[in-house]
Amino acid sequence: MSSGAKPLQPASLQLSALPDFPLVQPGDDLVALIAAAAERSGMAPADGDVFVVAQKIVSKAENRIVDLASVVPSAHAIAVAAAVRKDPRLVEVILSESRRIVRQRPDVLIVEHRLGFVMANAGVDQSNVGPADGGEHALLLPEDPDRSAEALRAGLQARFGVRIGVIINDSFGRAWRRGTVGVALGAAGLPAVIDKRGEPDLFGRTLRATVIGYADEIAAAASLLMGQADEGRPVVIVRGLRWSAEALPGAALIRPEAEDMFR
Amino acid sequence: MSSGAKPLQPASLQLSALPDFPLVQPGDDLVALIAAAAERSGMAPADGDVFVVAQKIVSKAENRIVDLASVVPSAHAIAVAAAVRKDPRLVEVILSESRRIVRQRPDVLIVEHRLGFVMANAGVDQSNVGPADGGEHALLLPEDPDRSAEALRAGLQARFGVRIGVIINDSFGRAWRRGTVGVALGAAGLPAVIDKRGEPDLFGRTLRATVIGYADEIAAAASLLMGQADEGRPVVIVRGLRWSAEALPGAALIRPEAEDMFR
Repeated sequence: MSSGAKPLQPASLQLSALPDFPLVQPGDDLVALIAAAAERSGMAPADGDVFVVAQKIVSKAENRIVDLASVVPSAHAIAVAAAVRKDPRLVEVILSESRRIVRQRPDVLIVEHRLGFVMANAGVDQSNVGPADGGEHALLLPEDPDRSAEALRAGLQARFGVRIGVIINDSFGRAWRRGTVGVALGAAGLPAVIDKRGEPDLFGRTLRATVIGYADEIAAAASLLMGQADEGRPVVIVRGLRWSAEALPGAALIRPEAEDMFR
Repeated sequence: MSSGAKPLQPASLQLSALPDFPLVQPGDDLVALIAAAAERSGMAPADGDVFVVAQKIVSKAENRIVDLASVVPSAHAIAVAAAVRKDPRLVEVILSESRRIVRQRPDVLIVEHRLGFVMANAGVDQSNVGPADGGEHALLLPEDPDRSAEALRAGLQARFGVRIGVIINDSFGRAWRRGTVGVALGAAGLPAVIDKRGEPDLFGRTLRATVIGYADEIAAAASLLMGQADEGRPVVIVRGLRWSAEALPGAALIRPEAEDMFR
């Protein structure tokens, strides 16, 4: 190879879910909850660890909860709700979080979220908001997931005295593939994308097009431990990652409209 | 909860790349190469391990190599090549592997592969085919990645006497997100997708829409160890996964046209 670039791919990775994580309530201090759970389990964070935190507990701690009883749906929301067979109040909340509707059909409402994510229901979730709730509350995405990730990173670093990364993850559907996969809504302290263009391959030729969705791959890996049906394991520590690229927030994962191949 | 469904999410996962994997040549016996590398490194496969194998080495072992000097591009391939600024012979090979062009623009050619994958260049790769090749050969996807995965699974199970899963992975771009992520082209011995619809959530409500792209999440996790710039770590063993759903091949990850939200 002509350059001195060395692969930073680790030979091994360990992923561990924090056990016995408590149910999160609005206003809870997530840094304190995560630190307490790590200490209870004897997990001492190390330099380079990446904490992957489920969006739901971040949203709950930030009190991103809307009481549907307080929502008055617009005529537009009522019309969309009829087409997609959802609660008009929920649709009103979804549309208030969205720039535009990408696709709608019965049981499906895919939007461009105000932050640029193309996703179902703007990430608004009726499930798991609370016990005996009957679906009368909606949980929105964090106001600014990159800011939330950065706050968690700063707080956990101060608490543990090590350099860590934080990813806030969620599960997204995809255009042409079945099933949801974990993706990074927000990231701090690590490169959400890594641009390897221009690096030589094993035979010295320049790689053609290799921008890696690094934080999304980490988010997907952590989702394997979190599951989707409960909140029992909303924090996963990934150990063994190494990177040399500069830190980039989760917003770097959103493809600019001008680059979008699929509009 | 009304049902006895238990989460199968593991509390921890370990991912290990097989070290010192040799360069793969056409006709090589991948089962023998993988088994030898595992034995050299002292890694004894256990029940439930998932072997993630990079598409490139499967394609090479299966001799899915085309000498571009032997390719005569059609008029259509020449026209597309001019539009996308690629070698017309390479475009001829790409189109021969494709059902249709999804998007084309300078430096970008996204197609629907004959197996249904929507991906750049039908997965045809000019890089890393061999030393001092000058890009004069193209490497195609395996003829049938699910069949390749099943052959590896059967061979490795016979060799090691344990029940394992196999995923053949590659890196795909995405419609609305920057960066490539690992996905499963083929899978055997595990559920490529897991349908959790109908399971109750933590509060007893039925989950709305949760089909999980399980093999894609595993493929993405393994990509973190494989990297993209070399073939040094083309096999990753994932330990700790547990599943109760029936095995489904990688083809289950391809969204049927009728379900496609984005055409």
